[in-house]
Amino acid sequence: MSHFAIAQLLKGAVAVDSQVTVKGWIRTRRDSKAGISFLAVHDGSCFDPIQAVVPNSLNNYNEVTTLTAGCSVEVTGKLVPSEGQGQSFEIQADEVKIVGMVENPDTYPMAAKRHSIEYLREHAHLRPRTNMIGAVTRVRNCLSQAIHRFYHERGFFWISTPIITASDCEGAGEMFRVSTLDMQNLPRDDKGNVDYSEDFFGKEAFLTVSGQLNGETYCSAMSNIYTFGPTFRAENSNTSRHLAEFWMVEPEVAFADLNDIAKLAEDMLKYVFNAVLTERRDDMEFFAQRIEKTAISRLESFVEKDFAQVDYTDAIEILKNCGKKFEFPVEWGVDLQSEHERYLAEVHFEAPVVIKNYPKDIKAFYMRQNEDGKTVAAMDVVAPGIGEIIGGSQREERLDVLDARLEEMGLDKEDYSWYRDLRKYGTVPHSGFGLGFERLVAYVTGMGNVRDVIAFPRTKGSATY
Amino acid sequence: MSHFAIAQLLKGAVAVDSQVTVKGWIRTRRDSKAGISFLAVHDGSCFDPIQAVVPNSLNNYNEVTTLTAGCSVEVTGKLVPSEGQGQSFEIQADEVKIVGMVENPDTYPMAAKRHSIEYLREHAHLRPRTNMIGAVTRVRNCLSQAIHRFYHERGFFWISTPIITASDCEGAGEMFRVSTLDMQNLPRDDKGNVDYSEDFFGKEAFLTVSGQLNGETYCSAMSNIYTFGPTFRAENSNTSRHLAEFWMVEPEVAFADLNDIAKLAEDMLKYVFNAVLTERRDDMEFFAQRIEKTAISRLESFVEKDFAQVDYTDAIEILKNCGKKFEFPVEWGVDLQSEHERYLAEVHFEAPVVIKNYPKDIKAFYMRQNEDGKTVAAMDVVAPGIGEIIGGSQREERLDVLDARLEEMGLDKEDYSWYRDLRKYGTVPHSGFGLGFERLVAYVTGMGNVRDVIAFPRTKGSATY
Repeated sequence: MSHFAIAQLLKGAVAVDSQVTVKGWIRTRRDSKAGISFLAVHDGSCFDPIQAVVPNSLNNYNEVTTLTAGCSVEVTGKLVPSEGQGQSFEIQADEVKIVGMVENPDTYPMAAKRHSIEYLREHAHLRPRTNMIGAVTRVRNCLSQAIHRFYHERGFFWISTPIITASDCEGAGEMFRVSTLDMQNLPRDDKGNVDYSEDFFGKEAFLTVSGQLNGETYCSAMSNIYTFGPTFRAENSNTSRHLAEFWMVEPEVAFADLNDIAKLAEDMLKYVFNAVLTERRDDMEFFAQRIEKTAISRLESFVEKDFAQVDYTDAIEILKNCGKKFEFPVEWGVDLQSEHERYLAEVHFEAPVVIKNYPKDIKAFYMRQNEDGKTVAAMDVVAPGIGEIIGGSQREERLDVLDARLEEMGLDKEDYSWYRDLRKYGTVPHSGFGLGFERLVAYVTGMGNVRDVIAFPRTKGSATY
Repeated sequence: MSHFAIAQLLKGAVAVDSQVTVKGWIRTRRDSKAGISFLAVHDGSCFDPIQAVVPNSLNNYNEVTTLTAGCSVEVTGKLVPSEGQGQSFEIQADEVKIVGMVENPDTYPMAAKRHSIEYLREHAHLRPRTNMIGAVTRVRNCLSQAIHRFYHERGFFWISTPIITASDCEGAGEMFRVSTLDMQNLPRDDKGNVDYSEDFFGKEAFLTVSGQLNGETYCSAMSNIYTFGPTFRAENSNTSRHLAEFWMVEPEVAFADLNDIAKLAEDMLKYVFNAVLTERRDDMEFFAQRIEKTAISRLESFVEKDFAQVDYTDAIEILKNCGKKFEFPVEWGVDLQSEHERYLAEVHFEAPVVIKNYPKDIKAFYMRQNEDGKTVAAMDVVAPGIGEIIGGSQREERLDVLDARLEEMGLDKEDYSWYRDLRKYGTVPHSGFGLGFERLVAYVTGMGNVRDVIAFPRTKGSATY
């Protein structure tokens, strides 16, 4: 790999006048009347291409003048400061080796013009070649690296919780079945029901909707853990915020209460936003210019401000008394809708808000009951410009309270025996949250649809590639 | 979170005589006749517990003397150098807050005695509380962090390739079907076949067996990418090396040939082994003592030696002439068995070996054909003590050669249209490999079975939790 990444050259990591080789793809070609061609060559390592100045003294100059967007080349020459605006260095080419041409440039799906975002989605295998999806890819990578780094620095262990699960804990509905049964000849028991004892796992199995319950088992031994893996919902929601397959980050912390975990969420978001602002300035400038004017300024404001904190009960009062008319009426006991959350973050607090202590009847069985008997120690983090970005809770660590809650909700204790074991044997207060990774990337980049921030989105009716 | 991780205290990161609190679980308790109790408290942050010395002057001393393995506590006191052997610091406790007892200590599944590894597997939700699985968890985390760091430092982008795929490229067989169809009432077309157009994705969908082909699309734009995610095989293999769900690392590098990628594999393995040797010495000492005597020495030897390189054709000659009788006979054209690979690595070369250029008839369609017309640019990395750990290849980047190969193998070009597009539009030589992450963890720890190095193993007949 005897060549340099373009990012290295553009940031001045290589001495001027060095002989260098770059390998990549043509973004544009421009020929001057003086017999010089200017090639913009990119290799994905950073937002900008590097300019190669190709004199007509080269043996294959005629070939060079047939290069079009997407052709692959190896360019060797001298690295020199560039006189052009907006570029630091360029290459005076001695050699341009043509590696791969583009068949029928006129019909090349990624020809150098603006494409609609829907068109790009239909060419998901080629869209990383565009400025936009290239930038998304680098920012997504930056965020994921920062997430791993954040937790690793704080002594958290990454746990890969299972993707396939036959656990009954997850609550069916909206789950994908995983099976190797022969669909044309399903085995049946003597009542005529499908006989899952003959399926691969000997019982019904599904794709996980969350690693939380599994994560709690490791939290109850290792103290600080997190998951970062794919999760699945077979929801029929055709929205810009939903995918059938998406990545989740779920930390779980022993001896932590709701406030601790709210602080962890704030620290994590600020850490990863700072990473993007520092490491991916080039891509963020593109997003600010072309996708969302405030892409940079809102991240800068986010990392500077303390999160606001408000109780659900107080938030309801704020919303009832604010004078604004909402589509969904506000009353104690209802779940907050996106319009409510955004009002709180964008208008009332003008900052990210942690909303805490929700009515227990709208929340999951595992959330810790507060002393008032009406609410649970749940929280949502709501940010200006996006709405809910994180949901978490303190978990119910008291076996008797958990059991009463399971019964109240008509859930079978037997199905939760391993989860209950954690409360029987050295139980500890613990808390955690879940972050939808694609929503985070969409927020940071300003991309309006989560389908454009994951390489190959899976949605109702679509799982190609 | 006003307490210290035990790892911090034991490594001397906190000043002697500081007042500190630790929170964790009892490993053992010992009472002296002099009215002092010694609690070994662990919190998962490192291999060793910290000793808390509890005088009988504490108000709840009687309660303290009822603590058993697995009980959760908060201990506050003065951090002092320890006089005991093998421990650096201990805590002179002023306060022991009992957080959670163990119900019926006599029947606590993780009571402080040796358990068989099979027994632990059946208690996967509690086994991270043991020395062994705790150590596996920390080493696994260390390896995964090191992998991300290795690629990030080298300018690779992490790509999350899809888990669910309706692509026809992967070759069915041994794949898990993903579906939301009502199994009791499957929709049928007019020929009586299951009508997958009514399924969630509008066609048949499966769990991925590899991210490689998808990864190649991003490599053809971003140059250097890697995947690190779960993959699936519905194999009925009840062995110590197979899981139905396992994590794979798959780098893909543009403008790289087989030798480049062999070098990358060598660099990566050495990098991550060095990370374990440096960062998880405590856990590795446990593995060397209790699991595999050479656990540390073989890693040290691995990182010091250059990998041997041998052509498949030469390897066959070595095996035929070595005088050893193998169970599977050796002849040019056969795939190498584990016994052959291990002979080469352990006896002949006494080093990790890269075996290159295999007969094309035993390899996949996408591997690049060599000029001899008989072999492809494939490689396996084979290590002493484990056998094959990495498999990779240079990919066929020439459209005409790829098409001829597809035809030869009876595969339909139409099914590979997006894969072929990468060769139509600015094709570049590129190469990559796959590393089974659980096999790596099993090798490093010396654990004999991959089921014990992933939190909740999925195998034929088993997907509980």
